[in-house]
Amino acid sequence: METASMSLLHALKEVLSEQQVTENQTVRELHGRDESYHKESLPDLVVFPETAQQVSEIVKLANKYEVPIVPFGLGSSLEGHVIPYEHGITIDFSLMNKILEVRESDFLVRVQPGVTRTQLNKELKKYGLFFSVDPGADATLGGMAATNASGTTSVKYGVMRDQVRDLEVVLADGSIIHTGNLAAKSSSGYHLNGLFVGSEGTLGCFTELTLNVYGIPEHVMAARASFPSLNDAVEAVVSILQAGVPIARVELVDEPSMKQVNLFSETSYKERPTLFLEFHGNEAGLKQDVEFTREIVEDHHCLDIEFETDNAARNRLWEARHNLAYAFIHGHPGKKMMVTDVCLPISELSGAISHAREAVDLLGLPGGIVGHVGDGNYHTLLMIDMSNQDEIEKAEKFNEQIVLYALERGGTCTGEHGVGVGKQKYQQKEHGQALHVMENIKLALDPDNLFNPNKILKTKDRG
Amino acid sequence: METASMSLLHALKEVLSEQQVTENQTVRELHGRDESYHKESLPDLVVFPETAQQVSEIVKLANKYEVPIVPFGLGSSLEGHVIPYEHGITIDFSLMNKILEVRESDFLVRVQPGVTRTQLNKELKKYGLFFSVDPGADATLGGMAATNASGTTSVKYGVMRDQVRDLEVVLADGSIIHTGNLAAKSSSGYHLNGLFVGSEGTLGCFTELTLNVYGIPEHVMAARASFPSLNDAVEAVVSILQAGVPIARVELVDEPSMKQVNLFSETSYKERPTLFLEFHGNEAGLKQDVEFTREIVEDHHCLDIEFETDNAARNRLWEARHNLAYAFIHGHPGKKMMVTDVCLPISELSGAISHAREAVDLLGLPGGIVGHVGDGNYHTLLMIDMSNQDEIEKAEKFNEQIVLYALERGGTCTGEHGVGVGKQKYQQKEHGQALHVMENIKLALDPDNLFNPNKILKTKDRG
Repeated sequence: METASMSLLHALKEVLSEQQVTENQTVRELHGRDESYHKESLPDLVVFPETAQQVSEIVKLANKYEVPIVPFGLGSSLEGHVIPYEHGITIDFSLMNKILEVRESDFLVRVQPGVTRTQLNKELKKYGLFFSVDPGADATLGGMAATNASGTTSVKYGVMRDQVRDLEVVLADGSIIHTGNLAAKSSSGYHLNGLFVGSEGTLGCFTELTLNVYGIPEHVMAARASFPSLNDAVEAVVSILQAGVPIARVELVDEPSMKQVNLFSETSYKERPTLFLEFHGNEAGLKQDVEFTREIVEDHHCLDIEFETDNAARNRLWEARHNLAYAFIHGHPGKKMMVTDVCLPISELSGAISHAREAVDLLGLPGGIVGHVGDGNYHTLLMIDMSNQDEIEKAEKFNEQIVLYALERGGTCTGEHGVGVGKQKYQQKEHGQALHVMENIKLALDPDNLFNPNKILKTKDRG
Repeated sequence: METASMSLLHALKEVLSEQQVTENQTVRELHGRDESYHKESLPDLVVFPETAQQVSEIVKLANKYEVPIVPFGLGSSLEGHVIPYEHGITIDFSLMNKILEVRESDFLVRVQPGVTRTQLNKELKKYGLFFSVDPGADATLGGMAATNASGTTSVKYGVMRDQVRDLEVVLADGSIIHTGNLAAKSSSGYHLNGLFVGSEGTLGCFTELTLNVYGIPEHVMAARASFPSLNDAVEAVVSILQAGVPIARVELVDEPSMKQVNLFSETSYKERPTLFLEFHGNEAGLKQDVEFTREIVEDHHCLDIEFETDNAARNRLWEARHNLAYAFIHGHPGKKMMVTDVCLPISELSGAISHAREAVDLLGLPGGIVGHVGDGNYHTLLMIDMSNQDEIEKAEKFNEQIVLYALERGGTCTGEHGVGVGKQKYQQKEHGQALHVMENIKLALDPDNLFNPNKILKTKDRG
């Protein structure tokens, strides 16, 4: 698109200001990768719209010039979602970063897609509220909705999809729709909220989100419990869930990962398979939940359980957990991270994690296992030398082994990171004939394959 | 379809047994209505499949003979969903009523669509589990999924859509897909679970459901609180929610409705605006929640609050609440019930209910207001003489007034009953351009408009 690109550029500059459109090499490079091991590819142009109307104009021009569009938040995706392998226009939403409305008494906020979760939480704190979804990275809310992100708190508060009451979306023809409303529930029409959340920019561009928020809990208690084996730790979680303890967070960190945590966060936590736990509730109820949990973990050979009652220690604990991926990256300079992301029914979790641990040990690559085990979701973090083809192949084969194990037991290839390009090869196996329904929906909503082509689904070439 | 009907009948009898296909007038009449005021219309044939494979064969034949299909549970829908205005084949799922699997430790059940919620709960009790969605009527789970039903407990446990992990669905071409998996969360592919739940039989026929279930709570406490005015009762609920009390049920019943309850259930509850409440949790936490709630309702001029601690009294209380619709019907022999079903953001609820109460008083028809007020969802129950055109018109105009009030304030025309034919006229107003997306999805998945034509969306005639 050599000459076409010139007239597209010209046309874009008619609907956007000079500074909102760029061909700058450095900017393009920043939009040619994400945080994963997937290979780079640059967009032809990067645009920075400020309004839904501008997004609509960009989409119409992309349509006219037959150029694909990739929406971009902060690039913290882990499966190559935002990498424009077909080039074209990347829409960067960083200028659409306003918190538009806090409906305090409705427990709702209306935000632009470029707002990050920590930015939102900082504002919400003034109202005694918080936004629950916490994937670790300080991602944008638009990006989190696009991948149906979740994380440490979803065992209690649900995933991103559960928080979305309404999206403003620019469709392939440039029209602007709302997918929901402000009511807590609705049985009106097809559930477009659910369809667009997790669509990874393949069906439209989000220009506004209305999200559920929660009151900051009256009392919070955090704990660390260490175990002689990974299996004991996982079985303890299963028992806590089965006992009906309304736990707010329960994270597993294995021994190699605890070592990385200590190295990076300058903590001196015991280097054993560890559960990080959190409880939210009223004082009396919490006390009873905590006591019950202590009994359960002791039944599972817990070596020691320590409670963090004050705010600072609690924050330190969760920061250590959150920094884990960075700790691995920091500890292995020059290498890239590959993360598995399967999720299984809880009864299959213990077997799955044992299987993964054995496979990592056989692999001979540095790696740890961590997980949002309350949901049945765990990650294997593998550090790979991207110049070593053998390592890459071993890691990919390992990922496949982990995925197939999960799929054979009713699980999914991705619990929270999404499909992007990395999990595309498992879609047929996971969804069977249902993949054809997804393809039909994509074709119905984006007939010219304008939006993030070849993500989630392998779509036909633009020719 | 006079002669075509004969060969269709013949073809159906080749894939089903003699008793599974009928043209019997009485059976057709039973499948020509639901529990609403919407007018009757009979199917040409009623079939009773026993397997997904048989449903697939029926769909293929319907395709071949160009005859529409309406899936039918127990006919407890309230907006004419199951009434076959285009005639054709009604698929009655009453023979597919098996509980296939209880995955106790995964908190999952796998059921056929004809299983009713009380049937399921009776079985689950053996495992110390329960199914949370409780719309009042003993509907089938297939029907509840089709309309995204909810009810008294959704303020804590969520609506039907939140419980569905997987559906087996027969599509318009007769193929059989699975929309989900057994994992607690997934970011793999488009969210077909969410799309098919609430699709009211317009996209496919459900032949199996995998649903979340919950542990029966350790402790349960129920209460009735009466107030001097409807407004005080509603404001009390808003304050309870805003205080973050994790209430499991909170139902509003107005004065005229309390009178009907007492008449029908032989109770002697105070005939005042009343809240029915329920709390689930551990003993200590519950005590604190209950005390806090007492303080809040007293701040809102509560006249008296009575706690029902024992199981029998608690069941009596909820039975009285559940029988309310039947109490109205029983109290007005010969009349039919029209129920409004809007849902609003919680901050708009008090104004909406005041507005509805005033409008009912002006109407001069017998009517009560009840509601799942924790969700912002309320119903006006109106008893209408269907032979009196003036009453019908007044009631329809009233319904429209209630809907428009909700839509203007970010609400929805239906919180839980669904669209069917009754709420179709509001779809354009509620969804705007998004309605076109829904039409495109319908066309992509059911190009020949085979499934429940002209429900939710006005679809083109089969010609």
